[in-house]
Order: sequence, then C-alpha cells, then structure tokens
Amino acid sequence: MKASNLGFGCRLAKFSVTFLILVLLNLAVTTEAKARIRRYKWKVDYSYFSPDCVEKVIIAINGQYPGPRIRAQAGDTIVVELENGLPTEGVVIHWHGIHQFGTPWYDGTAFVSQCPINPGETFTYKFVVPRPGTYFYHGHFGMQRAAGFYGSLIVDLEHGEKEPFAYDGELSIILNDWWHRSIYDQETGLFAIPFRFVGEPQSLLIEGRGRYNCSLVPSGSVAGSGDCVSCNSSNPQCQPYILPVEPGKTYRLRIASVASLSSLNFILEGHNMTIVEADGYNVDPVVVENLDVYSGETYSVLFTANQNASRNYWAAINVRGRKPATPTGLALLNYLPNPSSLLPSTPSPMSPVWNDFDYSLNQNKLIIARKGYEVPPPPKPDRQLIFLTTQNKVNGRIKWAINNITYVITSTPVLAALKYGLKKAYDPIPPPDYPALPFSISGPPANPNATVGSGVYTFQFGSVVDVIIQNANTLTPNNSEVHPWHLHGHDFWVLGYGKGIFDPATDPQSYNLKNAPLKNTVAVLPYGWVAIRFRADNPGVWPFHCHIEAHFHMGMGLIFAEGWDRLPELPKSVLGCGLSKYL
Amino acid sequence: MKASNLGFGCRLAKFSVTFLILVLLNLAVTTEAKARIRRYKWKVDYSYFSPDCVEKVIIAINGQYPGPRIRAQAGDTIVVELENGLPTEGVVIHWHGIHQFGTPWYDGTAFVSQCPINPGETFTYKFVVPRPGTYFYHGHFGMQRAAGFYGSLIVDLEHGEKEPFAYDGELSIILNDWWHRSIYDQETGLFAIPFRFVGEPQSLLIEGRGRYNCSLVPSGSVAGSGDCVSCNSSNPQCQPYILPVEPGKTYRLRIASVASLSSLNFILEGHNMTIVEADGYNVDPVVVENLDVYSGETYSVLFTANQNASRNYWAAINVRGRKPATPTGLALLNYLPNPSSLLPSTPSPMSPVWNDFDYSLNQNKLIIARKGYEVPPPPKPDRQLIFLTTQNKVNGRIKWAINNITYVITSTPVLAALKYGLKKAYDPIPPPDYPALPFSISGPPANPNATVGSGVYTFQFGSVVDVIIQNANTLTPNNSEVHPWHLHGHDFWVLGYGKGIFDPATDPQSYNLKNAPLKNTVAVLPYGWVAIRFRADNPGVWPFHCHIEAHFHMGMGLIFAEGWDRLPELPKSVLGCGLSKYL
Repeated sequence: MKASNLGFGCRLAKFSVTFLILVLLNLAVTTEAKARIRRYKWKVDYSYFSPDCVEKVIIAINGQYPGPRIRAQAGDTIVVELENGLPTEGVVIHWHGIHQFGTPWYDGTAFVSQCPINPGETFTYKFVVPRPGTYFYHGHFGMQRAAGFYGSLIVDLEHGEKEPFAYDGELSIILNDWWHRSIYDQETGLFAIPFRFVGEPQSLLIEGRGRYNCSLVPSGSVAGSGDCVSCNSSNPQCQPYILPVEPGKTYRLRIASVASLSSLNFILEGHNMTIVEADGYNVDPVVVENLDVYSGETYSVLFTANQNASRNYWAAINVRGRKPATPTGLALLNYLPNPSSLLPSTPSPMSPVWNDFDYSLNQNKLIIARKGYEVPPPPKPDRQLIFLTTQNKVNGRIKWAINNITYVITSTPVLAALKYGLKKAYDPIPPPDYPALPFSISGPPANPNATVGSGVYTFQFGSVVDVIIQNANTLTPNNSEVHPWHLHGHDFWVLGYGKGIFDPATDPQSYNLKNAPLKNTVAVLPYGWVAIRFRADNPGVWPFHCHIEAHFHMGMGLIFAEGWDRLPELPKSVLGCGLSKYL
Repeated sequence: MKASNLGFGCRLAKFSVTFLILVLLNLAVTTEAKARIRRYKWKVDYSYFSPDCVEKVIIAINGQYPGPRIRAQAGDTIVVELENGLPTEGVVIHWHGIHQFGTPWYDGTAFVSQCPINPGETFTYKFVVPRPGTYFYHGHFGMQRAAGFYGSLIVDLEHGEKEPFAYDGELSIILNDWWHRSIYDQETGLFAIPFRFVGEPQSLLIEGRGRYNCSLVPSGSVAGSGDCVSCNSSNPQCQPYILPVEPGKTYRLRIASVASLSSLNFILEGHNMTIVEADGYNVDPVVVENLDVYSGETYSVLFTANQNASRNYWAAINVRGRKPATPTGLALLNYLPNPSSLLPSTPSPMSPVWNDFDYSLNQNKLIIARKGYEVPPPPKPDRQLIFLTTQNKVNGRIKWAINNITYVITSTPVLAALKYGLKKAYDPIPPPDYPALPFSISGPPANPNATVGSGVYTFQFGSVVDVIIQNANTLTPNNSEVHPWHLHGHDFWVLGYGKGIFDPATDPQSYNLKNAPLKNTVAVLPYGWVAIRFRADNPGVWPFHCHIEAHFHMGMGLIFAEGWDRLPELPKSVLGCGLSKYL
C-alpha cells in the first residue's frame, strides 16, 4: 500500500498527531524536506470576455478566464492572497477535492466555512494539498461559479513517487456550459413567481472557449444600447482551445467539469481513451470511446496520437442526461506540425443518446479502484442516512429538498455557529435521517410542500456514515433529473448504484466492499439511487450538495459536521458577518 | 424665527443638550408628546421590472419599484428593518438629506458609516427626522442606486406648525435616467482599459416609469436566449405615471432627482410653477416655466390646474447639461374626471437648449431663502478649502480627482477607523486644502495623472468651513461637465456662483450673507465655481461627493469628519468588515 493511501486509511488512528502537524504547518513555515509554499496574489474583478464569441461581463481572476492554474506537489502549502475587486459582491473560493484537514475555515464556502470576503478586502487562504490528483477551484457563493469564477488545481506526486501509468505529455481542460444571461438574471428567475428557467445553455465551453453562431443574433439594434448582445466570431477569445500533440506519443489528459447544469460527454474524435484517474484516485484502467463527466468530477484519461497525422481532430463535448438544445462544444486536437488553423472537415462527434441512462450507469460502474491501490471501506457503517431528493414548492417557489427540507443559506458561517455555540444562527433541530414513509418516486411528490431549514447533521467523530441518495420524480410527471452530489472535506467510497427505490434489507448485500472507488462527487441518475460511505474524521463543517449551480441555490444541499470541538480558535478573518459579528 | 430654524442656527450652542437628547431618543422609545416611531420591514431582492417597457433585473424593496414611500412628521423616529435578500451583494441605504445627528452610523454609506449588510442579514436603521421637507433614500454602495434601489422620504411639519404657502392637494415624483445595460456591465466599463462609457440613457423615468420605443429592438432572436432585450409597450409597468388633479385646485408637487448622470429639466405642459421648497427649506417663491433639477436635489413647486379642463397635459423631463440623446420622459397631468387614457395630442414639451448654461446659472441664483425664514450664515469661515475637480488618468484608467487626488473606497468604515484609531484603514496624510498652483481650467489638465487616496479632511468641532468647488476642463478639449455636489450630515449655505476661476481676493465680496439658501446638494456648472459654507457641528464622518453615480464610483468624492471623539461606542451591527473585524 502506498504511503498516501496509508495516510488516508489510518487517518483516524493518526488523528491527533496529524492534526497537530497540519496546524503547525498552517501556522508556521514548514521545514519539511520537500514540501514547498506556493504563493499566489489574485485580484477578482469583473471583466468583459467573449468565451463563445458573445461578449459578457464575467468574474475574472487577474483578468484571466479561466482563472490562473495552480500546480503544486503533494504536501505543498498553497497560499492565495485574494483581493476582492468587485464593487458590491462578496467572494469566496472553494478548493474542490481538497480536504482542508486542520484548516476547515479555508474550505471557501460562503456562510458555511467563512463570511464572504467583502469588496476591497484581501483574504489569505492557506492550506496543504496532501494528495496528488486533478482538482479545481471555484466561487462558492450564489451562482458566481457560473459567471466564470473557476480554475484548475493540479497536484503532482511527491518527488520520488511514481504513477502506475506512463505518458509522454500532459494536457488539461475544464468543461463548462454557458449562458448569455447574467447570473443575476438567472438567480432572479429561480426565485421568481412564477419560476423562470433560464433554459438550456447557449454554448458548451472547453477550457473557457466555445462558439455561438453569431448569425443567430439579430442585427440593427441601437449602437451601445445593449439591446442585443455583441457577437464577433473572429474574437480570439472564442477560437477553439488547442490540444497540441506529437504523432505517436501518449498523453495524459486531465478533465474537470464545472458545468452549471449539464451532464457532459467528452469525445476525442477517432481516439479511444483509457481512464486512469477519477477525483484524485487511481482507477482501474478501462478503455472508453467517450466519457461521461458530471459537474464536480475530474478524470485523467490516457490517449495515444496514433491516427492519421496529416490532419487534426475534434475534442468535443455534448449534453447528456437532459434533452440537448446546445450545439457540440469543440476544441482542437492538433497533430503537430499541422497548423492549428487546419480544422477537421469531419462533423462534430456525436455522443450516446442523451437519455440512455443504462449507458451512463454502466460507465459509472466501470470506475473502481486500481489494483494495488484499493482502500477498502470499513465493513459496516455506524449510521445510515437515506436522502430522498425531491422537487417541491415553498411559498409558491420551486425548491429542491432532502427528506422534505430545503436548505436555506444562513447569514452566520455554520462553522462559527457550532464552534461558538451561536444557537440562533441555524435550526437547532437536526434534519431527519430518513424520508417519511411511505414514499413513491414514480410521480410528482404526493405532498409537494417542503419545509425550509438550515439544520446540521452532526456525526460522532471518526464514525462511519452511509448515505443513500434516492432520486425521485420532479414536480413534472415522468421527469427525473441527474444530480451530481459533492461532499466537502472528505472522499467517500461509492458502494453501489441501483434503479428504483433502495431496499435497505437487500441492496447493501451487493455493495462493493472490495475495490469501491474513492470519489468526492457522484451522480445519481433519474429514478435511481447511489450508496456512499465515508468516515467522519475531519474536524469541521462540510456541505454535501448537488453540484448543479441552480439546484444548490434552490436548496439542494445540507451540512455535515464532526469534531468541531477539537478545533482551535477560528481565524478572525473568517468572521464578521451575521452573529459572528458579536463574538 | 421658527423653532425648527432656530434649532439649526443655535446648534453649536445647544450641542451637548441636543446630542444627549438625540442619543436618548435613539436608545429608548421617545416619550415626547408628538413624536412617533414609524416602523418598516423591508426586504431587498432582485426583481424583473420593465420601467421603460424593456425588462430588466432591478433591485427592489418588498417587490416594489420605486421603493415604498416613507411619510413621517418632523421629530419622528424612523425604524427600518432591512433584510438583504440579494444572493451575493451587500447593501446599505442612505437617507439623503437627513443629518443623522447623534446617529452617524446610520447614514447608510458603505465603508464610510458602516459595513455593507451581508446577504441574509437583517440590519436595523433607527434615526430621527428632525425637520420637515422633501427627501429620499437610496442605495449607496457601488452603483446600486442606478439599479432602481431608491424611494421617497417625506417629512411633514409637526402638528400645529404651518407652511407659509397653501395648497389643496399634494403629489410627489422622483426623476431618474435609465439604461438597459446592467450596473455590473456599467461598472466594468468604467474600470476597463480602454474606458467604456455606457453612453447616454435609453430612457428618462418619472416615478419609475418611462417608455422605450420597442420597434428599436430587433426581432428574431432565439427565444429565451437573452440575446436581445424583451420590450413590451403594453406592460402596465411602463404606462405613464398619473398625476391626478381637479380643475381649479392648487397642488404641491414634490420633485426629487436620483438621476445617475443626467441634469434634468422638468415641465408641466401649459402650467407655470412656483418654487417654494428646495432641499427641505422654504425658498423665495419664484414662478418658472420649467425647472432644472440636478441629481440629489429636491424641490416643491405649486401649480394650479387652471387650464382647459377638457384635456390632459404632459408632465415632462428632458436632459440638459449634456447633449441629449434620450427621448423626453413623460408622465400625465390628468385633469379629472378625464380618463387617464386620454393622452395629449400635443407634442412632448421642449426644455431650454441643453448647453444654455446661463439659463441654468440664472435659475440656480433664483433659489434664496424665503423672507422670514432666512438663516444667516456665520459671517466668516474658520477654514477655506478650494477643490479643483478634474478628470485624470490613473494607471491607464480615467478617474475624477479633487486637488489631484481620486478617492478610493476603503474596506473599513471610515467612521470606525477614526473612532477606534485604525490608522491602517485609510491614508493618514490629509488631502490638500488647495489645488497646486498655477492651474488652468481652459484645457485638459497639464498633468493628467492623479494620486489615489482615501484621506480625510478633519475639522475642529463647531468650526465654520467654506468650500469652493472649482470646475475645470475634462481630458477632452473644450469639454467641462456639470457636477451636483452632495454633502452628508449637514446642510450648507450656497454663498455664490461664478464663471471661470474663483478669485479668493475678490469673489467672497459678492457672497450672499443675507438670504443664502440652505441646501444639501448644489450643482457646479461647466467652467464655473460655487462657494458653500457649513458648520462642522455634527459628530461623525461625512462624504462630500458628486451625485453622479459613475463619477463617485470613479473617485469624485472625499470624506469630511468632525467631533468623532464625542461619539459613544459604535453599534456592533455596523462593524465586521475590513479592520473593524479585529476590534
């Protein structure tokens, strides 16, 4: 077993020592042999960008979109001095997939781990990236991620460590879906009565680049009025992202999705891909023709540039899981020395039909731990939670709910509320572990009403928790949606997937306790369920939520907490809002 | 002399008693005979509105635009519980024209009097409205006022008091200019390199209603894409505001302007108007055919419905001071019982030509204190400041500067910084009292560079301060702009206006020391100057700034402060941001 895996498997036993080390790391400059401190100075600002040739105001970092890429080695300390240059919006950055063990206040979730960083303030994130893998970061406040506020975070192995696969070069992309309407407009629609859905995305972006058909924008609007968007197909910002390869060589391609809504399917035209990493863990290498990537997931695939080298190829994404209404997003696999202007004459690659959920389920099931890298889950849970996720109505507004409770963001960080006993800052009654029985998932909920809540699920420190996410029908007959669930502060074992209603008596018998993959995000498919297991061994407060931007905004999330009594005083920099103002 | 005026004139002498009383008023429920507590519960949210028939996301209060009207009596205490329902933006509300004597922390200026109210928080404003008059309130953070975040605040005389003019009925309107681009887009343009000006407004609004020519919006955009704005001329929200009158009767019409950019000229078609109030003070009643109203000013005019009663008339606003590119804004003077659907067949009323600044200057000079209501200014100042206001460049960005310093918003409230000695929260070096000599105002500044600063002008408590605002040429040859300057926490006497460069030796000789009007906002005209005087007798920290939304955002403002050492502890509710987090 590798050192890094051992570290995870024995985390509970080694807790006190590890915690002390991490706190010291956080307080002082590390003196460890290899680990480095990597410092970044970032300023967040509005910026005009044309990711799909249509100009829009986005949230950029240092004027860049996507944001600057962080590249580190396992064990390094990342220090990001973040200046908020927005006029009136607060900001935070969540480091997706990084556990923040010992530094839960730097998890970057507004009103959970910290107060939003006010306009004009500079806030310093400082945390260790303990494990290698493909990660990313993004705004975690309102729908700011959908405004372009994200970037890559890639962690290499420590010196001397080796990956169990070989490649000649490396490439990295983040996938996204994109709307022309502002996030303020989208947010307004979500809370409007009647509900207004922004609709399917206008474009799909690969590493922040896509292409809208400018001829769809009517001409003749009054100059400067903003009455119609400005679309310029020759804008350099919307030229396809280039993936340069040398013929015959093998590449590792890192893929992450920050999509707001869409389940995406990635294709390298004419090239098979071998999946080797998922959410930072080595997985059983399987060869696929295309790859489902859900929002919040990351993968590494290997491919060899072994096709006709006289031409270039499309790298493409299509929508799956929802009826597509968006053209294929395209980047260019550029066989050098061909010019990147040599676009393929072949049509945009097609993905499996959007509602072939068996295809999706089968691909999900392919993801298992790589041989020799298995981290077996604990054999039994100490506690089981079953989360029935439904679409509901609260005061005339459409919401998403878990066991009939729709989460409302508090105005005091939940971490501060628990640590300092601010009982008025959140609902004191813990939400239910199980849905009310009986329930049906074959039609709209019998009781469409839901309760509003900000309750917290608290776990005994070190205990093993199973969560079964049970999908259901939405408020619309014959409709159930894909939800990629993301857990902060932990990885979880994916024990199993199923269709229909989870049976607590029989379904656990088929759990994979041998080579279950460790992930931080897993998609539950329409009318299906997924079972995960994790150890509540990270002192802090951790959101567990659907990674679809609008769904979390509409209440599809909740808070887990454990061991917060073991934490030292919180840094004052994370306080100052809500009741934490009065501490 | 009236009691209310006496109170102002003798404020210094009565300070300690008055202050104590006001503090007590603020701390406890008043037991005074007539004064009442008026309570409001407001929630700020994004909302879809179509003020000029084009749908836009605005910042609404309780779903209303303009916000709810506050109506109180002099001496009342206003309590507004303000819940911020915006997803990621902070908010504050400034009570324009209300002095906040004894409650400077409720002045509602972000990062001056308080920290912005975070999303989800409820903040309580509690203050006395000591004098009768026409006032208003608005967001004072970023450009939120331009997003529709404003409303009326009207204070009646105390019981038993009488106005020195008579009328049968009362009407009230707020004027505004309106853009289709969001404030986020506008803000981005102001800070972009190269600078991007949003251009002249698409519409002018009277009490939140105007009318865009929907045929200017091209048709054929993809449904729901947001590629072109949605314009519906039959939307009830953009039907003209109705001013109902009975033939033969006399009305008091209260007029305020919250315009972002435009100097407006108001006309009641076919009706003369008698100006009787300006910025809350009775003024010499003069008859005008039309009225210049600068952003930040309020007026009351009397008019009699003495025209042909078989028809209705236009109430209209046009742009002056800038070359107009916006159609006349129209409301309807509705002679009852004519239906409000009976629109006048007469053309939209015309205003004096936009660049007839002599006309503007003459009208400004008409505003003097009403006989019997004069409050003579102190005969001499203790300190004189001359503010040369220029357009400059800082790091490639266009800024406005006062004596070559462009103001940058701090991240700690200046009031907290002074009160608690947070020296790192602002520039410790006070800005200069005079411009560097020699200077010219006949062309772009010889030195277009400016310094960035957040310095504070501090005054000896109770001292008399003169400020001469000296306008100049912008960065563009042969161009100088109108700037309406607004002072928080005080009214000032307008001592005189002039053209060209103010001469400190001779111009003060022509000051009006007899019946100078008291105002809180005064416009300085192109290439001209205006001299004001005030007593620094309000303990606190007070912005003095151009009321053009973009100009303050581009640095055209500064901070005055006096007597902050006399203040009690600040409420914790106004702290929590910047360095005030660490108190």
